[in-house]
Amino acid sequence: MASQQAATETVAPLSKYSKRVILKTVLEGGTGLVGQKIVIGGWVKSSNEVRKEPLQPPAVAGDTPAAAKDVTCVEILQTRIPFFRSIMKVLGGNPSPGRGKLESIVQQLPPPPSVAVLQVSDGSCVPSLQVLVDSSIAPPIQVMATGTCILVEGILQQPTVRGKHEIELKVEKIMHVGTVVQDRYPLSKKRLPLDMLRDFPHFRPRTTTVASITRIRHSLTQATHTFFLNNGFLYVDMPIITTTDGEGFSDKFQVTTLLGRDIKMEAIAMDVTGGVNLETIKASINEKSKQVEELKRTESNREALVAALQDLRKTNELAAQLEAREKSKSGTSVKSQKVKVEFSEDFFSRQTFLTSSGRLHLESYACALGNVYSFGPRFRAQKLESKKQVAEMWMIELEIAFSQLEDAMNCADDFLKFVSKWVLENCSEDLKFLSKRVDPAIVDRLQLLTSSSFQRISYAEAVEVLKQVKDKKFEAKLELGMPLTEEHESYLVDEIYRQPVIIHNYPKELQPFYVRLNDDGKTVAAFDVVLPKAGKLIRASQNEERFNVLTTRIKELDLPKEQYEWYLDLRRHGTVIHSGFSLSFDLLVVYATGLIDVREVIPFPRSHGKATN
Amino acid sequence: MASQQAATETVAPLSKYSKRVILKTVLEGGTGLVGQKIVIGGWVKSSNEVRKEPLQPPAVAGDTPAAAKDVTCVEILQTRIPFFRSIMKVLGGNPSPGRGKLESIVQQLPPPPSVAVLQVSDGSCVPSLQVLVDSSIAPPIQVMATGTCILVEGILQQPTVRGKHEIELKVEKIMHVGTVVQDRYPLSKKRLPLDMLRDFPHFRPRTTTVASITRIRHSLTQATHTFFLNNGFLYVDMPIITTTDGEGFSDKFQVTTLLGRDIKMEAIAMDVTGGVNLETIKASINEKSKQVEELKRTESNREALVAALQDLRKTNELAAQLEAREKSKSGTSVKSQKVKVEFSEDFFSRQTFLTSSGRLHLESYACALGNVYSFGPRFRAQKLESKKQVAEMWMIELEIAFSQLEDAMNCADDFLKFVSKWVLENCSEDLKFLSKRVDPAIVDRLQLLTSSSFQRISYAEAVEVLKQVKDKKFEAKLELGMPLTEEHESYLVDEIYRQPVIIHNYPKELQPFYVRLNDDGKTVAAFDVVLPKAGKLIRASQNEERFNVLTTRIKELDLPKEQYEWYLDLRRHGTVIHSGFSLSFDLLVVYATGLIDVREVIPFPRSHGKATN
Repeated sequence: MASQQAATETVAPLSKYSKRVILKTVLEGGTGLVGQKIVIGGWVKSSNEVRKEPLQPPAVAGDTPAAAKDVTCVEILQTRIPFFRSIMKVLGGNPSPGRGKLESIVQQLPPPPSVAVLQVSDGSCVPSLQVLVDSSIAPPIQVMATGTCILVEGILQQPTVRGKHEIELKVEKIMHVGTVVQDRYPLSKKRLPLDMLRDFPHFRPRTTTVASITRIRHSLTQATHTFFLNNGFLYVDMPIITTTDGEGFSDKFQVTTLLGRDIKMEAIAMDVTGGVNLETIKASINEKSKQVEELKRTESNREALVAALQDLRKTNELAAQLEAREKSKSGTSVKSQKVKVEFSEDFFSRQTFLTSSGRLHLESYACALGNVYSFGPRFRAQKLESKKQVAEMWMIELEIAFSQLEDAMNCADDFLKFVSKWVLENCSEDLKFLSKRVDPAIVDRLQLLTSSSFQRISYAEAVEVLKQVKDKKFEAKLELGMPLTEEHESYLVDEIYRQPVIIHNYPKELQPFYVRLNDDGKTVAAFDVVLPKAGKLIRASQNEERFNVLTTRIKELDLPKEQYEWYLDLRRHGTVIHSGFSLSFDLLVVYATGLIDVREVIPFPRSHGKATN
Repeated sequence: MASQQAATETVAPLSKYSKRVILKTVLEGGTGLVGQKIVIGGWVKSSNEVRKEPLQPPAVAGDTPAAAKDVTCVEILQTRIPFFRSIMKVLGGNPSPGRGKLESIVQQLPPPPSVAVLQVSDGSCVPSLQVLVDSSIAPPIQVMATGTCILVEGILQQPTVRGKHEIELKVEKIMHVGTVVQDRYPLSKKRLPLDMLRDFPHFRPRTTTVASITRIRHSLTQATHTFFLNNGFLYVDMPIITTTDGEGFSDKFQVTTLLGRDIKMEAIAMDVTGGVNLETIKASINEKSKQVEELKRTESNREALVAALQDLRKTNELAAQLEAREKSKSGTSVKSQKVKVEFSEDFFSRQTFLTSSGRLHLESYACALGNVYSFGPRFRAQKLESKKQVAEMWMIELEIAFSQLEDAMNCADDFLKFVSKWVLENCSEDLKFLSKRVDPAIVDRLQLLTSSSFQRISYAEAVEVLKQVKDKKFEAKLELGMPLTEEHESYLVDEIYRQPVIIHNYPKELQPFYVRLNDDGKTVAAFDVVLPKAGKLIRASQNEERFNVLTTRIKELDLPKEQYEWYLDLRRHGTVIHSGFSLSFDLLVVYATGLIDVREVIPFPRSHGKATN
């Protein structure tokens, strides 16, 4: 169908703002574009060299492109010489007559005619375009290394060298070459495992796997905004630097400008080395010792001798103490010390944190504008063993005024159906690639979300069901009132129900203070959505709209009430029944791409040692 | 047109997930919806009470709704009694027989029949819906206070009480009332200045002004994602916590988990009060003094006396020093002290910051996937006088592979045209409101962006033009090589060219290290887009793709090269010509809404003292 569309086009459209044609356009256009002269740019994924006057007749059958011939040392030299020539051109313009020696060798040994066959990708789609560079246009060695960037002009033609696709580009002009330092380029090896690339996050997008994940992530983002636009939600972004703790019990990163500058703190400590130092005391000891010797020698005054001896002893003690202290701070010794930091001196004149959740702030918008959502980074300073959590993750958060828990459940259900359908429709090629390379079940899982209703069970039912499990021993014991672990949740989803599960009505002890108390006084109106592979994707709740109940909860949990006065204000003045949820966007990407490790699906592996470079 | 559409509808559609009809739907539906029974929810913006049996004939002319009558004290009591009754119901269910006293008064004094006329908003549009609540359904006092939240069911009808709109709702059933504590609700007063609301950011969205700004901001977000989707850009989000300094010279927030815990630091300090204290020394002085007296008295040994006197003098000196130090740390005195923090103990085992720009990281995606953009919060720990900067702002950043500065200029131009057109088409009502309330020029300014080309001048031209200005004295002197200030820029835009201005080719000293050096060796390939009102909206550059030139720049600026090794890697391996820009999204909202103070247009006034609550 794609090629039919293209057949009616006369010219492949230029990419906006880069005067080249996107490879996706070319590859989808197919044979309809044959004969067009276009410019393309991209990076070499793999390559081989084909001699133009083959020693054997060309291979006409088989799945692989015409194989590269074995080459002799002389041939290697011959192919490399033009490379030197081109380097000399780049470095010095026209070579001076004095440099004529290498030049003359080059002229004496013209390279054997050959064609470099490059598989080039520009990141717009999974497949590469086959690009032919004749050795008369550029020496093969210059363009063939994996990772080389080229910008070339050429003619689209039906494949002359057997490849995977129905079109190839014959280069007529090279406009830019970005070479690679071959031994140091980490992607030179084929199919490097992703975790080997943790030290090179800046090259990860050049792998087909990460490129596919990025395109799926992009699609999920677009689907998210579209879903909320269609359903009348307003987008609001929430403060990242905050003084309010949304969860009431999370580990937080502090934001400060104090460190690395002079810290104002209570002077619990002082430096004794400035003047009253060990040397002074030792000199004093010397003198006292002489004095004692003198008194002993003269034997004139017994009292004076006793006093002098006592004095000497005390001074020695003082010296010993100072010496011990001097040692403790000398060299590389480090001392742990309690410092009381004066946050009044900090940028915001008080202690501030990176937000772990924007839901409380979002309520102030819901309590004025109705349906609102936010999409941004959230932070948790927890070192977890789980592969499904890192310190910095993007979350979708929403809040719906005049709604109850059931409404939020329906919204979560609709949202997941919508975005799954969107990805299935818009990313089929990427899904196909990842199915082959990472996880064969991803398409099935996405289809499951688009069609099935979710299994809805209460927390109590979940515990009941799990306690009856005989064939599996869980690491953590489970009783009513205890939290479900990742292991419990995945057993429910993967083994028992074999579909997405919504677990609702948790005991109040397991949920934040703001979740609405049910009539039983024990459970609260919260639910989690647990998916296969991704685990707990959504945390939802109807939030407490009753002023008195909310203040009681704050008191029960011994939270700093003054921090939540603004939040209580929303109940004092025009309170409304409302519900909402937080969705871990990174886990949604995990679900859609099949990579279990969230570090692999976020743009940079942030909680990793080499977090951001 | 809207009412024609509605006339063909039979039922107003329910809002998703909240079982109510959005007021925008009702008000746009107009008379076509008369007769429908619907549920609506919202907050009372203003109200008045109309007696059902008026003492005078009803007003039939005039622009205002039928005026509220003067009421006597007895009438006020009568209207309040049902309120007490309803409170008693809420608090105690059916009142017990023992509480019958007030109850009996209530039954003795039925309220005079009246209608509460409420203007109700749910944040979906500028106008309010007129809602009539008969006193037989709820006592007026219960629903009339500004800020009260109601969820009601009623019948849409043609206005019986004169109002601004062609439809009103007659309430049949009240489903929820969220009252206000009247004296404490900050929005009780009409038309409170925005800056008075800085202490109540959680109520700001309930003002029509902030609600309009939020809707325009939302529209600009949707327009942004749509523009980039249309033009083949992939969305990528960039790390917020980073070790790389994108600007090379920005003030940064640090992210840490060290503060408030024991800080490991070099023990440059010690406490001298534990043992070797002033008392010990003073006791020693006493003894030495006695010894000296003894030696003087006995006159037996002149040498011993001299030594003892010397010793006493030194010990006195030591005591004086210690005494001075003790004083300096006593009481409330606080001492500034340099602390070397051990970042190896921090969460990421090293010093980390909040990102000030994602552009460098974005390049690693552009150098694999072509056109990419990001949209997220960026941070600057600078206390600026400018109203156009705060510590936390959202930025749109993009990077285009295989592109030059001119391409980025075209992209900036197209983007601004697209989003301006979008807002003009989708937010006409909000723009109309803000034109009236805040800035009459906003529609003209947006139309200017959709139609005009930008004035493109070089930095050198800008300086030349500004130096020739005679009728205005700038606060900052300007010579070639000096930065343009906000004042200079706004003069160029507002007084000289009277249109958006692109200033390009800055001296390299005024730009970050990564901007591409021009052939003159002095200027670099950068440009800024300066708009009326908003000021410098976009900072753009073609980034240096040449490895050698880039390393030279890093050396010249004495930057820590090891921090940029990953960035240099992108030049070592498959380097590409590319350009991009950062756009301050908050300033775009300033431009579109007319509020000059960026703190007023971002969701929470973050750099403000009461930053986030």
